Amino acid sequence: MQATPVETSTRRRLQQVLEQPAVQRSILLLIVINAAILGMQTSPALVASWGELLRVLDMLILGVFVVEIAARIYVHRAAFFRDPWSLFDFTVVTIALVPASGPFSVLRALRVLRVMRMVTMVPSMRRVVGALLSAIPGLGSIAMVLALVFYVSAVIATGLFGADFPEWFGNLGRSVYTLFQVMTLESWSMGIVRPLMDVFPYAWVFFIPFILIATFTMLNLFIAIIVNAMQAVTDADHEATQATIEEAREHIEADLHEEVRALRGEIAELKELLRGQARR
Amino acid sequence: MQATPVETSTRRRLQQVLEQPAVQRSILLLIVINAAILGMQTSPALVASWGELLRVLDMLILGVFVVEIAARIYVHRAAFFRDPWSLFDFTVVTIALVPASGPFSVLRALRVLRVMRMVTMVPSMRRVVGALLSAIPGLGSIAMVLALVFYVSAVIATGLFGADFPEWFGNLGRSVYTLFQVMTLESWSMGIVRPLMDVFPYAWVFFIPFILIATFTMLNLFIAIIVNAMQAVTDADHEATQATIEEAREHIEADLHEEVRALRGEIAELKELLRGQARR
Amino acid sequence: MQATPVETSTRRRLQQVLEQPAVQRSILLLIVINAAILGMQTSPALVASWGELLRVLDMLILGVFVVEIAARIYVHRAAFFRDPWSLFDFTVVTIALVPASGPFSVLRALRVLRVMRMVTMVPSMRRVVGALLSAIPGLGSIAMVLALVFYVSAVIATGLFGADFPEWFGNLGRSVYTLFQVMTLESWSMGIVRPLMDVFPYAWVFFIPFILIATFTMLNLFIAIIVNAMQAVTDADHEATQATIEEAREHIEADLHEEVRALRGEIAELKELLRGQARR
Amino acid sequence: MQATPVETSTRRRLQQVLEQPAVQRSILLLIVINAAILGMQTSPALVASWGELLRVLDMLILGVFVVEIAARIYVHRAAFFRDPWSLFDFTVVTIALVPASGPFSVLRALRVLRVMRMVTMVPSMRRVVGALLSAIPGLGSIAMVLALVFYVSAVIATGLFGADFPEWFGNLGRSVYTLFQVMTLESWSMGIVRPLMDVFPYAWVFFIPFILIATFTMLNLFIAIIVNAMQAVTDADHEATQATIEEAREHIEADLHEEVRALRGEIAELKELLRGQARR
Repeated sequence: MQATPVETSTRRRLQQVLEQPAVQRSILLLIVINAAILGMQTSPALVASWGELLRVLDMLILGVFVVEIAARIYVHRAAFFRDPWSLFDFTVVTIALVPASGPFSVLRALRVLRVMRMVTMVPSMRRVVGALLSAIPGLGSIAMVLALVFYVSAVIATGLFGADFPEWFGNLGRSVYTLFQVMTLESWSMGIVRPLMDVFPYAWVFFIPFILIATFTMLNLFIAIIVNAMQAVTDADHEATQATIEEAREHIEADLHEEVRALRGEIAELKELLRGQARR
Repeated sequence: MQATPVETSTRRRLQQVLEQPAVQRSILLLIVINAAILGMQTSPALVASWGELLRVLDMLILGVFVVEIAARIYVHRAAFFRDPWSLFDFTVVTIALVPASGPFSVLRALRVLRVMRMVTMVPSMRRVVGALLSAIPGLGSIAMVLALVFYVSAVIATGLFGADFPEWFGNLGRSVYTLFQVMTLESWSMGIVRPLMDVFPYAWVFFIPFILIATFTMLNLFIAIIVNAMQAVTDADHEATQATIEEAREHIEADLHEEVRALRGEIAELKELLRGQARR
Repeated sequence: MQATPVETSTRRRLQQVLEQPAVQRSILLLIVINAAILGMQTSPALVASWGELLRVLDMLILGVFVVEIAARIYVHRAAFFRDPWSLFDFTVVTIALVPASGPFSVLRALRVLRVMRMVTMVPSMRRVVGALLSAIPGLGSIAMVLALVFYVSAVIATGLFGADFPEWFGNLGRSVYTLFQVMTLESWSMGIVRPLMDVFPYAWVFFIPFILIATFTMLNLFIAIIVNAMQAVTDADHEATQATIEEAREHIEADLHEEVRALRGEIAELKELLRGQARR
Repeated sequence: MQATPVETSTRRRLQQVLEQPAVQRSILLLIVINAAILGMQTSPALVASWGELLRVLDMLILGVFVVEIAARIYVHRAAFFRDPWSLFDFTVVTIALVPASGPFSVLRALRVLRVMRMVTMVPSMRRVVGALLSAIPGLGSIAMVLALVFYVSAVIATGLFGADFPEWFGNLGRSVYTLFQVMTLESWSMGIVRPLMDVFPYAWVFFIPFILIATFTMLNLFIAIIVNAMQAVTDADHEATQATIEEAREHIEADLHEEVRALRGEIAELKELLRGQARR
């Protein structure tokens, strides 16, 4: 798939066009306008009077987005699909192209995800989301422990309470959902545990430890993020201090060598004087 | 608008009066008394027996405030309107002067905002509020991401659930309010999501990720404040350490130079001795 | 009030007795037993069968406490009342001596506060409580700002909503209580603000900012504690680093002086040699 | 209980087998399969069609676990029971062997605890749980203070409100449970304190301080964990800085000694020259 020279120069020129600030700003502006249109389409009154106009504008903007994404794929080729931000843009624009009918009708509501492209366009928001995502891998082990605690607790809860409270603990999925609600402390006692205790007086023996373990684990997940963030700060300071100490050491030693070299010069002069005397 | 000498000296004397501790303390005392009066005016019983007195006292104190603000505007002119604390004082006093009738009747309840002037008068409270406000700009990007998540989620929720649950998701505004409630975890499951799941069994697919994303983003907003506050502390320590290292280096080198100078002096003496011998 | 020699020696001996580990341990044991007795007295069944015994034991232990406190007052005199822990012991024991009848019947329930003396007796608990209390003064300014926000918000809420929702906002006290509930996020929306919005559709304009301001201020109160605690840690490290740098500098300079002194010795020898030659 | 040589070699070989990665991976795989089986057994539909198969598979896997644990006890003997992770494995496997009938029927639901063995098998999860557990001892004193606050508050609440609200404060256990609910802020006001205030208008005098004290103490528990975690980080940095300063000092001094030795060499040469002249 060797690119011809003509093709290469077309790609280069297209890339320059796409990367021009004016083009970037226009795309951003279209995203904002599109966000407003999609918001207005939720209002039946506005749809009744301006529905057709909003639909056409939405289609036009979507068309621009499709052309832009297509141009970026033409320019970057395989590299486009290796960049997660580009993949995100591709996915949210594609969602809008799937005919939102029959089993896919829910996709209609997801068209607004397109607006999230703003994150990929505004550098400061991109940095924030990048930082949020980069915090996740370090939480993997704690999340696995939490998932295990949830799975085991859900099996126990389904076994113990499922028959009497099918609404809350009827199957594994419902138990996981209810335990998630309990972990967020929402109505855990008045809504869930007190009614349970009318049937199982010792239900608290299961729920109080579950709350303590789940919130304590969540807490440590949270603390892990703080400590990682702080570590980045103190490590930068620490490295700067190390560098300053090294520099100070090198400066002192350079100074020392220079001074000693000067002394040696003087001593060498003395030797010359002595040898001169000796030769006389 | 050149000020005449007489005017200038009047302004200077007025400024001295305004900045006298006794005057400042009197204003603060009036604010406290005004707070008590405005509190007492919420009690129908007190209003029934002392209403007229309270009203007159309130008017008198408001009069003093108006005179004080007018004097400060006369003294500082345009500079008054560039100082945010002064602008705050001006706004809360002005609110009380707007006739609280008809469409402005709600302003009657806001007269008590005047009491917030205590913050501008007490230095320690001013410092606290200043610190709180100064933390906000650094949170801008995270807040923008959070706002985008809210907007997109609100459009999706309105589209999906608006028709069946108009009370909670009937329009964009209601959806944003309900999502804010869900983010605070208040009755999110028993009050909102469980009723929704009776109609849309997969509603949790929308809400669980929303809760995770929204609370995780809020958490990072919170962590950003902690890390910034800690960074200020560690940076101060770090700079002090750097300075100490530099000082130590300079002290060692000064010491080294002095010692070497002394050695050179001795070697110079030696040379003199040698040259003296040579001349003999 | 000069103490006679006899009195002084009695006091000294009594102090020695009170401070003996065995005596301290006995008092602690009595506190634990007393805690158990006071707990058992909450059970009607136990009171029915052992009530008289429990009452007598409680009286006996209380008697020991009274004697112990009296002895400590005799030993330390005015100093007893200057020590906050002693004052606490005195207060909680005194509560039990007030006849719990008529208007004071509530004091019966407070007799169990006596058990809190365990904190003054166990050094590790005393340290924890001391640390908790020592964190409070640093929070004064933030607490004052929060109090002001609460007062102003309560006056506004009473004025706006008091007439229609007397149960929640009928007077200043009720408004403060309801706003505290809202700040803890308990049922703030489903329980309070949604019912309010049926009457005042814009009630959220008051409550959303209140929640944001109140929780943000609370958050900063919390962050202030973390940063203070961390600062203590980093400051200790920082001072140790400064000391190490100083020591390193002094060590290097001492070394330098010693080496230079040796060099001077050698040069002095050289001079001697030269002068010896010159004298020949 | 001297082991015979034959026995010792058998034990050594058995240990090698148990520690082979393939064996470890197989056990882990069995745990995952077992987790799936125990999950499937919560579904009546699956039990109806595959119940017997699931039961047999579960028994087989349990058999493998029993053999594995027995082998490990044979290999490590008393040491097995001193390792907390081994004890945990032993306990959760033993639970499955107790006949789950009559008073022990609850144990049937606890069979799934076996799946928690995954924590002991996956090193990264083991590290996380180890870190969580190691944070607990440092919290002992705060937990004791919190327990004391709960006990004293429960006795007071039972005495004051027990007669009128037996459901919530009828005995010590119920009061502790209700106070735990209040501390998590779940329905504390709308669910508990407002109904109480209809009978005891001053109930808030008890609950507001309780909430402030309990949440403030919990907060400090949380801060203690963060500060400990941060201290570990800064201490490591601090020690590295100290070491760097020491190294810099030693390097400078070594450099100084070397240079001075070289100077001495030169001065010695001078002396030789002088002595040579003198001898001539």
